[in-house]
Amino acid sequence: MANMALVQLSSLPQPEVAGPKMGAPIAVVGVAGYAGGELARILLQHPRYSPKNLSFFGRADGETPDVSRPLSQVHPQLPIDDDVRVHPFSWGELERGGVKLLLLATPHEQSRLWIPEALRLGLRVIDLSGAWRLKDGRRRSMYHFTDKDGPLAEALQAEAVYGSPELHKNAIREARLVANPGCYATSIILALAPLLKAKLVDLERGVICDAKSGVSGAGKTPSPSTHFMYAADNLSAYSVFGHRHMGELLEQLHLSETQIQFTPHLLPIPRGILSTIYLRLTHEADGDAIVETMRQFYRDCPFVRIRQAGMLPQIQHIVRTNFCDLGAVVDEKTRRVVIVSCLDNLLKGAAGQAIQNLNLMLGWGETEGLL
Amino acid sequence: MANMALVQLSSLPQPEVAGPKMGAPIAVVGVAGYAGGELARILLQHPRYSPKNLSFFGRADGETPDVSRPLSQVHPQLPIDDDVRVHPFSWGELERGGVKLLLLATPHEQSRLWIPEALRLGLRVIDLSGAWRLKDGRRRSMYHFTDKDGPLAEALQAEAVYGSPELHKNAIREARLVANPGCYATSIILALAPLLKAKLVDLERGVICDAKSGVSGAGKTPSPSTHFMYAADNLSAYSVFGHRHMGELLEQLHLSETQIQFTPHLLPIPRGILSTIYLRLTHEADGDAIVETMRQFYRDCPFVRIRQAGMLPQIQHIVRTNFCDLGAVVDEKTRRVVIVSCLDNLLKGAAGQAIQNLNLMLGWGETEGLL
Amino acid sequence: MANMALVQLSSLPQPEVAGPKMGAPIAVVGVAGYAGGELARILLQHPRYSPKNLSFFGRADGETPDVSRPLSQVHPQLPIDDDVRVHPFSWGELERGGVKLLLLATPHEQSRLWIPEALRLGLRVIDLSGAWRLKDGRRRSMYHFTDKDGPLAEALQAEAVYGSPELHKNAIREARLVANPGCYATSIILALAPLLKAKLVDLERGVICDAKSGVSGAGKTPSPSTHFMYAADNLSAYSVFGHRHMGELLEQLHLSETQIQFTPHLLPIPRGILSTIYLRLTHEADGDAIVETMRQFYRDCPFVRIRQAGMLPQIQHIVRTNFCDLGAVVDEKTRRVVIVSCLDNLLKGAAGQAIQNLNLMLGWGETEGLL
Amino acid sequence: MANMALVQLSSLPQPEVAGPKMGAPIAVVGVAGYAGGELARILLQHPRYSPKNLSFFGRADGETPDVSRPLSQVHPQLPIDDDVRVHPFSWGELERGGVKLLLLATPHEQSRLWIPEALRLGLRVIDLSGAWRLKDGRRRSMYHFTDKDGPLAEALQAEAVYGSPELHKNAIREARLVANPGCYATSIILALAPLLKAKLVDLERGVICDAKSGVSGAGKTPSPSTHFMYAADNLSAYSVFGHRHMGELLEQLHLSETQIQFTPHLLPIPRGILSTIYLRLTHEADGDAIVETMRQFYRDCPFVRIRQAGMLPQIQHIVRTNFCDLGAVVDEKTRRVVIVSCLDNLLKGAAGQAIQNLNLMLGWGETEGLL
Repeated sequence: MANMALVQLSSLPQPEVAGPKMGAPIAVVGVAGYAGGELARILLQHPRYSPKNLSFFGRADGETPDVSRPLSQVHPQLPIDDDVRVHPFSWGELERGGVKLLLLATPHEQSRLWIPEALRLGLRVIDLSGAWRLKDGRRRSMYHFTDKDGPLAEALQAEAVYGSPELHKNAIREARLVANPGCYATSIILALAPLLKAKLVDLERGVICDAKSGVSGAGKTPSPSTHFMYAADNLSAYSVFGHRHMGELLEQLHLSETQIQFTPHLLPIPRGILSTIYLRLTHEADGDAIVETMRQFYRDCPFVRIRQAGMLPQIQHIVRTNFCDLGAVVDEKTRRVVIVSCLDNLLKGAAGQAIQNLNLMLGWGETEGLL
Repeated sequence: MANMALVQLSSLPQPEVAGPKMGAPIAVVGVAGYAGGELARILLQHPRYSPKNLSFFGRADGETPDVSRPLSQVHPQLPIDDDVRVHPFSWGELERGGVKLLLLATPHEQSRLWIPEALRLGLRVIDLSGAWRLKDGRRRSMYHFTDKDGPLAEALQAEAVYGSPELHKNAIREARLVANPGCYATSIILALAPLLKAKLVDLERGVICDAKSGVSGAGKTPSPSTHFMYAADNLSAYSVFGHRHMGELLEQLHLSETQIQFTPHLLPIPRGILSTIYLRLTHEADGDAIVETMRQFYRDCPFVRIRQAGMLPQIQHIVRTNFCDLGAVVDEKTRRVVIVSCLDNLLKGAAGQAIQNLNLMLGWGETEGLL
Repeated sequence: MANMALVQLSSLPQPEVAGPKMGAPIAVVGVAGYAGGELARILLQHPRYSPKNLSFFGRADGETPDVSRPLSQVHPQLPIDDDVRVHPFSWGELERGGVKLLLLATPHEQSRLWIPEALRLGLRVIDLSGAWRLKDGRRRSMYHFTDKDGPLAEALQAEAVYGSPELHKNAIREARLVANPGCYATSIILALAPLLKAKLVDLERGVICDAKSGVSGAGKTPSPSTHFMYAADNLSAYSVFGHRHMGELLEQLHLSETQIQFTPHLLPIPRGILSTIYLRLTHEADGDAIVETMRQFYRDCPFVRIRQAGMLPQIQHIVRTNFCDLGAVVDEKTRRVVIVSCLDNLLKGAAGQAIQNLNLMLGWGETEGLL
Repeated sequence: MANMALVQLSSLPQPEVAGPKMGAPIAVVGVAGYAGGELARILLQHPRYSPKNLSFFGRADGETPDVSRPLSQVHPQLPIDDDVRVHPFSWGELERGGVKLLLLATPHEQSRLWIPEALRLGLRVIDLSGAWRLKDGRRRSMYHFTDKDGPLAEALQAEAVYGSPELHKNAIREARLVANPGCYATSIILALAPLLKAKLVDLERGVICDAKSGVSGAGKTPSPSTHFMYAADNLSAYSVFGHRHMGELLEQLHLSETQIQFTPHLLPIPRGILSTIYLRLTHEADGDAIVETMRQFYRDCPFVRIRQAGMLPQIQHIVRTNFCDLGAVVDEKTRRVVIVSCLDNLLKGAAGQAIQNLNLMLGWGETEGLL
């Protein structure tokens, strides 16, 4: 983070360090939201980035003021640096800045509309919205995009890579368009992928995912259900049998709707997701075997931590980190398994995973800026 | 509360009790908000009221739907009783119901406009807004009422009684219009009134009030500062040197602006106010003497509890009660006193105090429905 | 609550009311804990009880001081009344007071030891601990009672009635010993009983219960997992496949261990339980049919509220009430059902349900003191 | 943080970077507590430290197990690295490791006893406890040290430097023993130092400090007042006129007890302090002048941020940073000033400030590891 707070610190002696190779310019759009703020925070600490090769923009939907202002006014927890500014969005500005890669923390509808243009201009894109995650158009209809997808959008959709580094690392490295996964979806997909691959899951009986998320997942726009008086001291289930992230589970895990179900709940905490996942094994295995299967699957994945039996994941262990923690308890007699999966919905569930994808796309170390 | 949940309970045997005399019909306007919901909850448990002599209305500003609906849909924590409904407001409905007294939990502007009409129709009114609390027109200008006050409003303002039962019990009994006090103001006025009356406060040095309130004080309308992500895990000062409740302190305590100051803070809790008040004594006194002065002042006041030294008030002791708890610590060497005052901003700071006033106006026992 | 705060209020005029018939003396043991405090609060407001026919005792394990002290010092949120005191426990004191019924809010071990003696003395007992809930001795071994059960304990265990008024109303009316249900168990049993009775649940596939509870369920003794820093902003699963309340589910719902599983979680809130329950129907039914089955089952049960589709239960709706709220969502294609069940663990999950049992045992109206 | 998670990451390609000069070995004692955990987290990310020149020890009072165990078991939020271990404390181990500097996050009593020995062994020490902060022995008696201070302790006390980098930067650079300031004291001292130096504060009228802290300030040992049920949804004042940090205010600000008072409160949040400070100016000045006075005072201080009028500090802006934010509102007519000061009690109020001191003592850049 030595690049921060330049004005304040300029008179202080700085250690001389031959630093890493810096990246080509990149831009963040939608920096005023929660995920956008985390993108900014991470990139300003990232060894490949500094205010010189970063630019920040607001959204294009009137939420953004007409004039630029310091990022530290928008996110007062960030170090003060009047040279790091949020600008009203403009394609011209992007081109003038020589931007090569775009991180979009914008609403679904805006991402759906803009990305064809961005690709046409030769940019690579990481989109944090749900707009380009689903291959199946019927499922995508849950997002109610108002325009009809033409052949270009169809082709782009086919090309888009689902940005789960643990599942699609090589495709992400080459991708023009990465659809960054949903927060709930990430917590569930990472929990299930190893056991499904090992054919340990009794799909006839199906999988049940009971997931709980902090309020930041609902976004920054004030609404009745993000009111402190609604969320505090409360817990509520919502979108039972109808949450948009279901489509990601089906496509990424190759399951049918009868094989998996998912119920989200709103927790009275700022951030963090805990998913409790219920399944039966196809054949006998003990807890150690299950843990070992997970460990093998993720042996090259620096951001998935497999907990030993006796120390189940909990939200405080992963908040403000890019880790997804997994743990499992097995009832051997009945072959029942309970998996607990935790991540920070704004990091591994959004901005952190996006930077992990960026690192892969640009050839940086996967953990740079994230540990 | 035996009058609740009539539909569900009608087939159950009920104990036969010769109950208290029931009251003439009354109405609550603005029942959908937090204070309105508390008014409804208390009145439905009040020994003098049942759905037969109560009616509930929404606000008149478009917030209310056109058709009536069950109160338990608006406040799902209340017992289900489809006969207890919230109606769109209408003066005609009030008259048809024979309503004699109106409780207004409406915005300041609406209360300012409506109350002359209500009094013209012969109703008595308890107004929970700030519209009629301040005698001094200059101070009242902080509420930015858009209409000019004519002679009628001037006369009504002169007649309005500030609804602090501990200070104005007799006037409240006879009042046509009671201006129910502000939540912060109640916590500070009750803390200071005994020592000021006993001329124990060094007014040359002045009084400093550092007050902290839960989020319900900010109302039900979603806004950036009532968003869970803003309020949770946070504390912030606001309206420094400029809060509207200051006028109430000045008028009720007969102080000038140089003699008292008040800083409100937003606490990350649903409800409750704690005010920490700093003053110097005019002459030596120990903690016991201060506590005794308070006890004497409130000896006939069932809702003010004076804590012994060693057990300062805290918010959990008063939440969901109509009590205001007071405690004091004295530094004898320097004559400095710290008073801690706690109340529930929705009860003793709003709806509870309003019912206390109602009990006085209608000749019921002061604590009925409130203990 | 007119019986409270006698000292403070004695000089005030009180309305004269011919009240209900008062009860014979009863006692609460373990009044200093959370459930004990709720028992005291409810009984002091109950139309059949006043300080004259109530007595309060501490626990017998050294937690209690040697001398009596005012209840309002132990629970400062209660109205001040120096005549309402907590006494060190003694059998002699119970006999001298003519106590006929005992409410025990004591640890399991203490309840197991004391109840034979209490019954021998002719007392009726409502025990809030888990000591006498389970008929199956093997399951009861989870409580690790240090003494061997003799024939007397065997007989008493056979006689003990599981205190779920919705399931065993008539037996409770006649019972000498009522074993008040566990909080998690109540939320799950009430959710499942109607559908199981109607043979709508596919038991081959089994039932999964994902339950979440506030911190008061863990008791008042400070421990690492009740530390604010552990519980706040967190969520954690615990006792997976091994929670003591499992036995109650099996016995009360007549299920085997392969037919139901249950995972508790610790929520960062003071009180409230939400259980999300997953099952498949044996044959097709829509949401209305499921709701109607529940309504019929609970048509004479004043404390179970069945929510319409579109308004699922949430914790804020039931906190500080004795209600258990139930709601269901059905996926007709796959016959999957999600039931959401909410209650306040200290009320319907403990003290409130105990008073409901007391009302039944003594012939009072079931809702007296509880609405 | 590239040095973390070595086991997991060893097979991944790492970018080659010519890094900064590494430091001589240092050790942290008391790493299991909250401040100790933050010290470990910061040092493991610090560009001058890696597991090779860091060692971690438990406390010496039996809280520590006899065998070493991975740090990531003690603080599960830290990246897993089985080579980073917590050892039982031993002086011999320190010497064998060639440790040159000791960070003590130990109880007051332990720090008082150990530091003479540590200095005798030639170590430099940063002590996070209150043991060596106060020059005045009478004030130090609030800590109730059981041993009598001999001449050695007297000399060491005279030599100890109060570790506020903003006040004593040069002395810290040379110090053998740095007494790291208290959390409340830091928030108040930094708020007042500029105006006191400028002789703007009317000391005749005195300064009032109303401070509020999150629960981590109370330490990790479970107790009634750190129980979630006590702290949540609550606010309470404590140690009125008697908090230990008062001595630091008096000594560092050169004030007498009649010139300043301080009331701490316990906030229902994990971390963060907000102090609201009331004073009168000796002569007229507007808000801009006050802000400018602060800015000038802190112009070389990278961790103090002065907020413009209109954006007062709040806890969310500084949580998990080493910043102390300051803001002021002036009432020009009456010369009254309200200063709001915020910091994270575990960082700028403890571990962060300790690392800032470490950087100064060892010649690193003041912000290394902290931005």
